[in-house]
Amino acid sequence: MHTVKLKLVTIIATRLIAEEIVSAILRLGAKGYTATDARGQGARGLEPLDWEGSNTRLETIVSAEVAERIIAHLADTYFAHHGVIAFQQDVEVVRGEKYL
Amino acid sequence: MHTVKLKLVTIIATRLIAEEIVSAILRLGAKGYTATDARGQGARGLEPLDWEGSNTRLETIVSAEVAERIIAHLADTYFAHHGVIAFQQDVEVVRGEKYL
Amino acid sequence: MHTVKLKLVTIIATRLIAEEIVSAILRLGAKGYTATDARGQGARGLEPLDWEGSNTRLETIVSAEVAERIIAHLADTYFAHHGVIAFQQDVEVVRGEKYL
Repeated sequence: MHTVKLKLVTIIATRLIAEEIVSAILRLGAKGYTATDARGQGARGLEPLDWEGSNTRLETIVSAEVAERIIAHLADTYFAHHGVIAFQQDVEVVRGEKYL
Repeated sequence: MHTVKLKLVTIIATRLIAEEIVSAILRLGAKGYTATDARGQGARGLEPLDWEGSNTRLETIVSAEVAERIIAHLADTYFAHHGVIAFQQDVEVVRGEKYL
Repeated sequence: MHTVKLKLVTIIATRLIAEEIVSAILRLGAKGYTATDARGQGARGLEPLDWEGSNTRLETIVSAEVAERIIAHLADTYFAHHGVIAFQQDVEVVRGEKYL
């Protein structure tokens, strides 16, 4: 089975911010996304917990270049004031062209 | 801690198709699976969005050989007409024999 | 964009055990976690299915050392009598210091 190496970008944010992020990732080149309801708790250094409760977990499969663009956008827009989590991983995908 | 390298296969499909897929992956050698409710949006090339709304996100940890078999089955059965997403990743697992 | 390589630890357990696990992972050094409701089915060797139904899927981003500690704790505490699943993966994270 022929697979292509792409990036899986996972983002966890409050529901309100997640809606904005969906628009942004599609604008930045993602062809789709999956969202699940999540809850959790996070800390920012020594500050008090900065997000807790209802969150959305977004994931999208994109090229390395689009992944970079999405993460840079999140860093610029949300990281200073919001508890957004973002990470990327390698994934092997069939029908790689679907995501590009 | 002794860990074993296996494959995590993640599949996103409409709920109805996900039920069929669960039976298929167990038949093809998976020893279990985890399912979560999801929603999302995807595109197939230049065609209109081909899935939107209520989906199921399935994940299963299997050997590389079973992962290959599952992905080949999904490609043969669903990829032509349905917006099924499937990808695999390396994972390190304790008690690897549980999944084989 | 500067990213740091860390570990994503994913744990799937019954809801009751998941609450205990959340306390344990924070005590063992995790700075946060994300939880989603899940369901599934698993087998333990040739024994009958040992978990089925309502589960929680936890994920946390931590250093390799904390990942090791969490997985060792889960193995010692739950693996003999409970169907807890745990696996780790490499992830690239922005703002890596947030998780350490």
